[in-house]
Amino acid sequence: MWWENKVMRTIRCRNVQKPGVLGNLLKAIGDVGGYVGQINTVNFLTYHVDRDIVLFADNEVHLQKLLDAINQVPDVKLLEVRDEVLEMHQGGKIAVRSRYKIETLQDLRRVYTPGVAEVCLKIKNERSLARRFTAIKHLVAIVTDGTAILGLGDIGAVAGMPVMEGKASLMETFVGLSGVPILLNTTDSQQIVDTITNIAPTFGAIQLEDISAPRCFQIEEELIKRLDIPVMHDDQHGTSVVVTATLLNATKMAKINLRKSIIGQIGLGAAGMSISKMLMHYTQKPILGADLSEEAKQRLQKAGGIPSTLEEIMGKADVVIATTGVPGLIKKEMVRKNQIILALSNPVPEIEPEVALAAGASFAVDGKVVNNVLGFPGILRGAVDANVPRISDEMYMAAAKTIADLAPKGELVPNPLDKSVHWAVAKAVAKVALDTGMARADLADYFDQ
Amino acid sequence: MWWENKVMRTIRCRNVQKPGVLGNLLKAIGDVGGYVGQINTVNFLTYHVDRDIVLFADNEVHLQKLLDAINQVPDVKLLEVRDEVLEMHQGGKIAVRSRYKIETLQDLRRVYTPGVAEVCLKIKNERSLARRFTAIKHLVAIVTDGTAILGLGDIGAVAGMPVMEGKASLMETFVGLSGVPILLNTTDSQQIVDTITNIAPTFGAIQLEDISAPRCFQIEEELIKRLDIPVMHDDQHGTSVVVTATLLNATKMAKINLRKSIIGQIGLGAAGMSISKMLMHYTQKPILGADLSEEAKQRLQKAGGIPSTLEEIMGKADVVIATTGVPGLIKKEMVRKNQIILALSNPVPEIEPEVALAAGASFAVDGKVVNNVLGFPGILRGAVDANVPRISDEMYMAAAKTIADLAPKGELVPNPLDKSVHWAVAKAVAKVALDTGMARADLADYFDQ
Repeated sequence: MWWENKVMRTIRCRNVQKPGVLGNLLKAIGDVGGYVGQINTVNFLTYHVDRDIVLFADNEVHLQKLLDAINQVPDVKLLEVRDEVLEMHQGGKIAVRSRYKIETLQDLRRVYTPGVAEVCLKIKNERSLARRFTAIKHLVAIVTDGTAILGLGDIGAVAGMPVMEGKASLMETFVGLSGVPILLNTTDSQQIVDTITNIAPTFGAIQLEDISAPRCFQIEEELIKRLDIPVMHDDQHGTSVVVTATLLNATKMAKINLRKSIIGQIGLGAAGMSISKMLMHYTQKPILGADLSEEAKQRLQKAGGIPSTLEEIMGKADVVIATTGVPGLIKKEMVRKNQIILALSNPVPEIEPEVALAAGASFAVDGKVVNNVLGFPGILRGAVDANVPRISDEMYMAAAKTIADLAPKGELVPNPLDKSVHWAVAKAVAKVALDTGMARADLADYFDQ
Repeated sequence: MWWENKVMRTIRCRNVQKPGVLGNLLKAIGDVGGYVGQINTVNFLTYHVDRDIVLFADNEVHLQKLLDAINQVPDVKLLEVRDEVLEMHQGGKIAVRSRYKIETLQDLRRVYTPGVAEVCLKIKNERSLARRFTAIKHLVAIVTDGTAILGLGDIGAVAGMPVMEGKASLMETFVGLSGVPILLNTTDSQQIVDTITNIAPTFGAIQLEDISAPRCFQIEEELIKRLDIPVMHDDQHGTSVVVTATLLNATKMAKINLRKSIIGQIGLGAAGMSISKMLMHYTQKPILGADLSEEAKQRLQKAGGIPSTLEEIMGKADVVIATTGVPGLIKKEMVRKNQIILALSNPVPEIEPEVALAAGASFAVDGKVVNNVLGFPGILRGAVDANVPRISDEMYMAAAKTIADLAPKGELVPNPLDKSVHWAVAKAVAKVALDTGMARADLADYFDQ
């Protein structure tokens, strides 16, 4: 969207109640290059009218220019400038709630003591009853050490909290899971593994978030070995699932066979490595991989890929996926005719889709269509509902296919706000769990719901 | 209450619609010694009537006898037996909720990306803003290793989860804090300290729960040293605050001066040690302490107390507090005239209050009046609101005095369901924080709310 990288503010203006004042105000904003969004009338009185106007500026400096211009408009008084994004983050975006009202002593003795003692003893005698009589089944730890937050990098776990809360909000909204952010005080891999292992009994699944490569690989691997609940590093698997879904539809639209294509992956960080592995699993063929780090290329080779260079990939591959974080890395001269290019770095891609298409690509998109939100909620829901000890490659692939299948005609992926998509992903994952014998829950009614 | 230790079930009976059937049914239950509670009419039809009847039995065997008797009553059909306590624990008693609806792409970009990035960067640049823009301030870890759950002992952390969820439910209900149960996979003190330290940035406070003595002392002490957020072991301080409140009122009613009394503490576990320390802090006098463990008595001596025996304490002390878990430990012959006795072990006290009173005590209560629920929610709320690095003895004492002051005339403690009590405790704690210079939050408006 054009406004994705704009600064958005809500201003409240008090205009004198006479014809033309609002028009002058909006014209003044437009003269300095400002966009306006929603306009709400807050007070409509005899002598004045108060309005909230959503303003979009290019940056903070531009915003100040707009405000200066607004202050010059006759009969207009700028009352306040609000940042509603910040306002809604106040106090955080999640809360732990009691599922029951506690208003009488009877409630207290049911929820707490002495009623609770019988529940405890039942679980003590049969541990598996914890899935029925506690919240463990729907609690998911969202764990970060803050070393690779969003597009922001190593800003520390506490500064990453707004993102973790965002994930928790999405989880609850889309599939009813209770995401619990866990901010780590350490970036040491072994300490992270030990800490998560020590608190794991609390949770039905562990979602690792925004942990930088290569530590994220060892940490996930070791936790999968140690724990018998699903562990998923979203930046690896959430991303690769959604990229694969996108690619399944892109190749279908371009009428090429993904399984027979030469695929190149540029950038072998958390996302790039996981995309490579997933596509190799799907195509049963090696893929070409480029990275500045020798270590990363060796990691790919160990996983069955072929270390390569940017130029080789651009020259040979039918499908190119770039996740490097380097804006403009791919020059238009490098593009081969009919290539499919997914340049996924945010906010600025390795090559702008329109440039790639003009240079002969048959299909090109940037990172805005690939939203992890399509993946992790349903994958985790299916995995905990099936009570699997780990999430298999087949489960991730089923999730990708489901997402691809649910894209409306002409679109690469479905709308992430559509809850039915997330539940379809959950059922696809649970179905694989059932079919491969990994489900430990009774799923008799699960697919009829 | 008489029904505290009974087994409670709800039965649904279908009675033929004619006079006297319900009477026969209730008489049959009474004949086998069963109590009945609430009776609800579910369906009232021409030929039959369905009723839900709450039944209280002495134990499971007695319950079976009641059900057998019910099955013999003419014109009555037993449709089902429900355990509503278990029913309400299904799926757990807490959930993490999104504080905002996410229904449009606009919502998504505010709650999540890209809007969230600006919030992250603000916190990165000024870490203290995390208190404003995240949930950290209202998140409280409720951590247990499951070694001393309620009256149940070492049943493991997972079996203790229903209690932790109960605490979280109470916290949210009474003071709006978000309690997050953390179940530990280890009982090793050092590992517990390290694990909690590693996840501490997530939380505004740490509540330790149901960790057995003596490990609980070292663990709490070490965490208080390491962390700069409040850490409170509820079984120590929650209990001692409520016991002290009870004692303040009991001595007032018995017209004795607690500060001038000889106080004896029988049982020096988590609760006993903390009660001793709190009363020594208040009276500025040593108290007598008895325990089977030499180590425990030495710990008391180190804290300024006088190691003693059960017999010495019963012979000398004006005020006796017992927290031993040993039913009937105090014989009626041991009771001195005009002694105040708090025999707090649950479910069966060291001496029944009526027995103690008959033997000459001027005041005697058992553990049913001492409910931790009166303490921890308000103490934690005040501590996190004031943003103190730790909870001081003065804060605990202020909480105790507030609870004592709010007891209705003739009662030892106030009703724990009264939210105003919890908020009064919070303000009392915050007030001490402000007065002693330990508050790091701006409390300008806090006491007017």
